[in-house]
Amino acid sequence: MKLIDKSCTEFTHALSSKAAVPGGGGAAALVGGLGAALAGMVCNLTIGKKKYAQYEEELKEILRKTEELQDNLLKMVDEDAENFLPLSKAYGLPKNTEEEKLEKARVLEEALKIACEVPIKIVRTSYEAIKLHEALVDKGSKLAVSDVGVGVQCLRAALISGQLNVIINISMIKDEEYVKRVKEETDHLVAEGTKTADEVYRKVEAILS
Amino acid sequence: MKLIDKSCTEFTHALSSKAAVPGGGGAAALVGGLGAALAGMVCNLTIGKKKYAQYEEELKEILRKTEELQDNLLKMVDEDAENFLPLSKAYGLPKNTEEEKLEKARVLEEALKIACEVPIKIVRTSYEAIKLHEALVDKGSKLAVSDVGVGVQCLRAALISGQLNVIINISMIKDEEYVKRVKEETDHLVAEGTKTADEVYRKVEAILS
Repeated sequence: MKLIDKSCTEFTHALSSKAAVPGGGGAAALVGGLGAALAGMVCNLTIGKKKYAQYEEELKEILRKTEELQDNLLKMVDEDAENFLPLSKAYGLPKNTEEEKLEKARVLEEALKIACEVPIKIVRTSYEAIKLHEALVDKGSKLAVSDVGVGVQCLRAALISGQLNVIINISMIKDEEYVKRVKEETDHLVAEGTKTADEVYRKVEAILS
Repeated sequence: MKLIDKSCTEFTHALSSKAAVPGGGGAAALVGGLGAALAGMVCNLTIGKKKYAQYEEELKEILRKTEELQDNLLKMVDEDAENFLPLSKAYGLPKNTEEEKLEKARVLEEALKIACEVPIKIVRTSYEAIKLHEALVDKGSKLAVSDVGVGVQCLRAALISGQLNVIINISMIKDEEYVKRVKEETDHLVAEGTKTADEVYRKVEAILS
């Protein structure tokens, strides 16, 4: 059974247990999925309203994108769990001889890069979803503006949590070129993404007060 | 069927739809529940480990508390949906005569206070769960410290989202004494809670780098 097919209660209980999955990465992906879904909700509550007719086409396009980002984030919950398996296996390899040590280091390096894949995607996708909320704070129904606020808070959490799971893995990766490239990309997206999320949130607060 | 018994996928899809529930409040409660669950995971991964034996009793007490906060937050997902019903009903009341207008205003005021209840509890409970993570960053297994980081990010999002849902409701409540009391309490908890969450997160980052 896929993790994402568990009920919200079961998923939360599994998260709190000592089982290896779901872990922080899976939780981040789910929270990101909820943040993207809130952008979808705002589109669905705005499309068809006369007052926002001028944005109709744009809103339909934003809705299409949020659905894609949401589904991708939900898929990452199980993908992250699967990508943890090679790493868990690599840790168990023997290192009694010089040959075994070299082989373990090689397999571990590869497994760490695999474990990094989903966290990097969580950062990228959460960033993109925050940008969609940025458009919605101006073009979405004002009646749903608090959902933009909750959405960017969820995505901000997912973005930073994704980065944290990147950091854990790259701290053990030896390939300096890879580490530099991943660190630069994710640091940039997190800096820009949190800045945008905070700006959007302040706009929501201003509209509501 | 309870919202919280839906699969994670179904819940997310329902959130993105134009249906009245789940809304931002329910999403905030679930994200808070996930944040509390991560504190439980850290306890479960630490309890029984020799290296942390000195914290054993304290960790068991933190685990008991996280489980309580987690279950309370999960319950709030459906409670928030139920508490929206009187408000939705009140909006539909007629206001053709002076008498109807007065009656509608009275019912609306009461319904707004009911709709405020869960968001206030989300703020309180997320704040408490952040305080538990604050203890865990020092006393939990270092191998699970990234889960403390993800946990505080989720709870920070739930805390602020809870407040936003308080703001929406109190902006329409006439009872000034009530508004002042609720605003003071939640503003204080959000200021303290985000400060603590950010401090805990910086500690996590420092440990990982």
